[in-house]
Amino acid sequence: MKFFNLLLILTLLIGNTFAQQADWQQEAPGVWKITVGEAQELTLLKAAGITPNTTALEKLSKVDFPLDKSKIKMEVIDGKTYLRFPLRKGEELFGLGLNFQTHNQRGRIMTLHVDHYGGRDNGRTHAPVPFYVSSEGYGVLIDAARYIKVYAGTSIRVDADDPPVLYDRNTDKQWKAQPYSDAVDILVPANGVDVYVFGGQSMLEVVQRYNLYNGGGYLPPKWGLGFTQRVPTLYSDKDILKEAEEFEAHNFPLDFIGVEPGWHSMAYPCTFEWDQTRFPDPQGFIKTLSNKGIRANLWLNPYVSPVAGLYPKIKPFSGSHTVWNGIVPDFTLPEAKALFKDHFKKNHINIGVSGYKIDEVDGFDSWLWPDVATFPSGTTAEEMRQVYGSIFQKMTGDWYREVNQRTYGLVRASNAGTSSLPYVIYNDYYSHKDFITALINSSFIGVLWTPEVRASKTSEEWLRRMQSVCFSPMAMLNAWADGTKPWSFPDVEDQVREVAHLRMRLLPYLYTAFARYQSEGIPPFRAMQLVDGFSVRSEKLAGELDGSENPYASYSTKEVRYQYMMGDAILVAPMFAGEKTREVVLPKGKWYDFYTGKLVGETEVITIQPGLDKIPLFVKEGGIIPMISKRNQMPKTDEILPLEIRHYGTAESNSILYDDDGVTFDHEKGEHSWTTISIVKKGKTFKGTLKIDNKDAFNYEKKVNWKFMTPTD
Amino acid sequence: MKFFNLLLILTLLIGNTFAQQADWQQEAPGVWKITVGEAQELTLLKAAGITPNTTALEKLSKVDFPLDKSKIKMEVIDGKTYLRFPLRKGEELFGLGLNFQTHNQRGRIMTLHVDHYGGRDNGRTHAPVPFYVSSEGYGVLIDAARYIKVYAGTSIRVDADDPPVLYDRNTDKQWKAQPYSDAVDILVPANGVDVYVFGGQSMLEVVQRYNLYNGGGYLPPKWGLGFTQRVPTLYSDKDILKEAEEFEAHNFPLDFIGVEPGWHSMAYPCTFEWDQTRFPDPQGFIKTLSNKGIRANLWLNPYVSPVAGLYPKIKPFSGSHTVWNGIVPDFTLPEAKALFKDHFKKNHINIGVSGYKIDEVDGFDSWLWPDVATFPSGTTAEEMRQVYGSIFQKMTGDWYREVNQRTYGLVRASNAGTSSLPYVIYNDYYSHKDFITALINSSFIGVLWTPEVRASKTSEEWLRRMQSVCFSPMAMLNAWADGTKPWSFPDVEDQVREVAHLRMRLLPYLYTAFARYQSEGIPPFRAMQLVDGFSVRSEKLAGELDGSENPYASYSTKEVRYQYMMGDAILVAPMFAGEKTREVVLPKGKWYDFYTGKLVGETEVITIQPGLDKIPLFVKEGGIIPMISKRNQMPKTDEILPLEIRHYGTAESNSILYDDDGVTFDHEKGEHSWTTISIVKKGKTFKGTLKIDNKDAFNYEKKVNWKFMTPTD
Repeated sequence: MKFFNLLLILTLLIGNTFAQQADWQQEAPGVWKITVGEAQELTLLKAAGITPNTTALEKLSKVDFPLDKSKIKMEVIDGKTYLRFPLRKGEELFGLGLNFQTHNQRGRIMTLHVDHYGGRDNGRTHAPVPFYVSSEGYGVLIDAARYIKVYAGTSIRVDADDPPVLYDRNTDKQWKAQPYSDAVDILVPANGVDVYVFGGQSMLEVVQRYNLYNGGGYLPPKWGLGFTQRVPTLYSDKDILKEAEEFEAHNFPLDFIGVEPGWHSMAYPCTFEWDQTRFPDPQGFIKTLSNKGIRANLWLNPYVSPVAGLYPKIKPFSGSHTVWNGIVPDFTLPEAKALFKDHFKKNHINIGVSGYKIDEVDGFDSWLWPDVATFPSGTTAEEMRQVYGSIFQKMTGDWYREVNQRTYGLVRASNAGTSSLPYVIYNDYYSHKDFITALINSSFIGVLWTPEVRASKTSEEWLRRMQSVCFSPMAMLNAWADGTKPWSFPDVEDQVREVAHLRMRLLPYLYTAFARYQSEGIPPFRAMQLVDGFSVRSEKLAGELDGSENPYASYSTKEVRYQYMMGDAILVAPMFAGEKTREVVLPKGKWYDFYTGKLVGETEVITIQPGLDKIPLFVKEGGIIPMISKRNQMPKTDEILPLEIRHYGTAESNSILYDDDGVTFDHEKGEHSWTTISIVKKGKTFKGTLKIDNKDAFNYEKKVNWKFMTPTD
Repeated sequence: MKFFNLLLILTLLIGNTFAQQADWQQEAPGVWKITVGEAQELTLLKAAGITPNTTALEKLSKVDFPLDKSKIKMEVIDGKTYLRFPLRKGEELFGLGLNFQTHNQRGRIMTLHVDHYGGRDNGRTHAPVPFYVSSEGYGVLIDAARYIKVYAGTSIRVDADDPPVLYDRNTDKQWKAQPYSDAVDILVPANGVDVYVFGGQSMLEVVQRYNLYNGGGYLPPKWGLGFTQRVPTLYSDKDILKEAEEFEAHNFPLDFIGVEPGWHSMAYPCTFEWDQTRFPDPQGFIKTLSNKGIRANLWLNPYVSPVAGLYPKIKPFSGSHTVWNGIVPDFTLPEAKALFKDHFKKNHINIGVSGYKIDEVDGFDSWLWPDVATFPSGTTAEEMRQVYGSIFQKMTGDWYREVNQRTYGLVRASNAGTSSLPYVIYNDYYSHKDFITALINSSFIGVLWTPEVRASKTSEEWLRRMQSVCFSPMAMLNAWADGTKPWSFPDVEDQVREVAHLRMRLLPYLYTAFARYQSEGIPPFRAMQLVDGFSVRSEKLAGELDGSENPYASYSTKEVRYQYMMGDAILVAPMFAGEKTREVVLPKGKWYDFYTGKLVGETEVITIQPGLDKIPLFVKEGGIIPMISKRNQMPKTDEILPLEIRHYGTAESNSILYDDDGVTFDHEKGEHSWTTISIVKKGKTFKGTLKIDNKDAFNYEKKVNWKFMTPTD
């Protein structure tokens, strides 16, 4: 703190700090960094503990600094950092946190603040990542663990480079409530900040670079891509084993079970100790589940109950305020981390617990520590709020890495730099449509999101939600409060099972998509804007003057919504309860129905009328989909499976298929395989071939069941 | 700025600043102040230019410092001020800005931020006054022009004085999402702050003290309490004169007309110059209106159009960013003020314009300058945002004071310290019920609010809204967008006229209520919590667990809503469209129907079924209501009116009646009258007498028409 004060004094004596254009340093190919003002001890990337994947970054295309440096302004005034980046006409901005209702963020004002999503895209969300990617092919990251205010093309300077036209509202119909703005203005409430700029030849490449700089995406264990059921709070070991049996009886997939608060001897706050009544023999319970091929994931919030054994030990390393009477460990301190690690390893990980659900680190605002809380490390409450989820992800992820077991869990709060961490974000909000928007937006900011299913009013809604969640990073039914089962609506039980089995069958395809997330930074589930050949921009729709409802005749925005890619080849267009038809915007080229192989359109907007039983899926020209046969659990290590490879369309094509042991980190030491799949035309028919680069890590039969889905004529 | 830096350096060298208990200074009887950390150049009270009414403050009851000083914590850490005040069990907190949906703010987290009200009581509102008054009889003001974060009884310290009980959510039904908190925690993003504590024997006395410290309330001119119509944007002088004639033809009250944007030669941004097409002869137009007894109020926003004559002159004294292409004058600079004053006096005030409607100073967030804007005075964008409305009120109010004419206008943003300024707050939001809640809450924070009428879906809604607005600080129909007239719904025209006439008739009573706002700080319209004998507390209603809608089984709060006092004697219980009955909570004592004089209840909750034609009004035991006869304009100076004085109930009683010339500030030099009205019992009948203290300023006939409304038996 003394050194900090001295620096601040020097800064003040010198006057306001201007960062110089020359200060941009290339950190990795296509990645530039500048430190404006004073370097901060705790940043988002530091909290997430990133290690850039330099090798992978070097493989991306060469790019120059993508912005006009003279138009970037950076200044520290009275302890706050003022940043400005230029914008062009028509430029769109994506990212700026996990938004639930909008994609293009240009025109919004946001305060990026970790919180439960409150129904408005205003910056308060589970992952308020201060990163935006522009349709012009660059990205900007503000690496500050602060409540960052972003004016994403709303502010207008007197001396704007590209000023708006002046209109008279009295008489000019062209008058706009929000005139044209040529800049992104950002206010960081700190006396310094690290800023990164990412280049790319496309938005996707910018996102790849961002993800790879953060270490690449996370490759879940195979079982993590299976189905997971979270059981009601007070379920005992016996209840859970019975639940597992019911899944078997219903022939329904189940790879891991989520154990909710009742496993703690006290919860809200937590003891992290097994309740001896409900779970008298935790080790035996985990073992029994494991024998059935089912893993257990434990719910927790990080707040330590006064009755926990950990409490007296960790109290000196905790903050000034409580959450539900629990103390808040200061995990920026090694002592707090070590105490948790000892307890968690001994009581959970060493007996086979597969991972955690990290709840309540977002806050719902009211529950969390206030911004006036203090922590023994000197980290402020605001900083702690912005990184608590990230730190907990990194800490627990490292524990599993130490035992060479991949985990795959859930978290309620995240931030920049977490793409390589083993967690999927979820929440308590429950709009099916907004869940899909969040899933799409997650791809801009290096996080994963699950549109979890909890309950539904009708069997139609149930089925539609189950279909969506099976085309997401985690196929989960979260029944903690409602006690629902996949078969809760018997009239759609078959269709629900069918889509769950379809997810299981797609394992080779999906696992490869995640492997590319790790190795190339390509999000496995991604926005249409990240797809080559998709060029639809958002449209402003003129508003109508209404003295009370719309007094400024503000515009509304029309965007392509509710469709996204899973991997390279499959376009997912989920359906929502009450809707019988929908539009699908097909990117450039021919597209085929996943189920029938039939051509559905080419570079056009189609309107579909799918039945209730299937989720609409479309495959691009030449799409190659490797699949396995129907099963209820993901394959065990060294299990050799028959492979079906589908090909769509009329073009020759290539694809890749990734594999490894599915559970350890040995793949990072080269124990993996990248297999090239080639489809070539022989006269009027197709022929497929495999080129396996590492047979030891290829867990499929060599003889492939080739399926050419589209009839040639 | 150099001095500021030096002080900051000293502060940093010394370490964090702790304010000492001994530092509380008594500023006035019952008013204490402390400066924590560094004194700020610009505060809310400084911006409002307050002058405490020390004489009036000395007349209030003697009180000691109302809180345990040892439990007040104040500290500056890393440039932010941390404040904490204790709370008791059951204590309620009112104020903390102009809230629209709730009264008791205990349990809320708010960021007090000038903005358009966005539908949630989260601190963003038109008057985010950082003042709260406690049911324990004290008030706290945080005098900082900053976005102040308030945890109003939500934060819980590890070492709380009164900690919450520990429950296990797994098994304890008493587990609460928001455990008990024994403190208000406040974070001010500044390295120092002025804090005030106000004492009082009741909540009302605390509010009085707060208002008197700010100079007392504003006494509007009599015409300001008449009816006002705001005309559509593009109305010309001729249209407006025709509108005035229509009011005459419809026998409808009209004291002042609001001229909307079209009077400017350009608007959004503004020129402040008359449009020569629509208003070729402004002086003649104002004069013609004046001859009809009608005044004109001019709409404006403060942002200067590039085509305005003022533009080149004021540009050097303006901020870095524009609002609708208009520059933003830095009114903390005397040069900017002087330029506006010259122009406004010459072109508006000197030709008889009666006042202004100051629009768009709240922001709707998107329209206003961003927080990264800079101003030539060095005032930050955040500070400017918090005080812009206050400064504009003070500046324009002073101009009218200089010409010894009272004004009464409208403003979209206000803050602490503005009670003596001549403005009523309004907005674009339009919930009738929430408008009433705002009207009630305005009484806790020293501001006035009008539940203006703009349009309605049905004649029932129209009448209900018109009834409410006639029992508010400004009886206004704002037809800028809709072109509505009071008679727009012909089937309720008579009833609308009747309530407007009733307001006119109540002038002596209402004017006295405002005079007491000025001289004693008693709000003319006030919350039931400020009424002696009202003791209902808000109630927490248990929530039901719902995995998606209410995952924490959060409580909801039940409060007495939608009833308030106008003056000392009249309880107003407005009705809302679609509702045929309502409950009314009668404070201690007997209460009577205003219209019939009949007893309606005593210290109880009554359910009423009023017809559509009248707004329910109740008068307390012994209530005395001085009235004039039906008229369409408020009396001119020296006009002598017949007086009707009503008495309600069966008790002897006294009251006061204020009067003065109704238009100038001469009343401040003693040219006013306070008349005592006494009702005594003579056998079975009552007799009333007047004791006039200054006959020169008593503009009523000496012979009173006494009406004893309640039959004696």
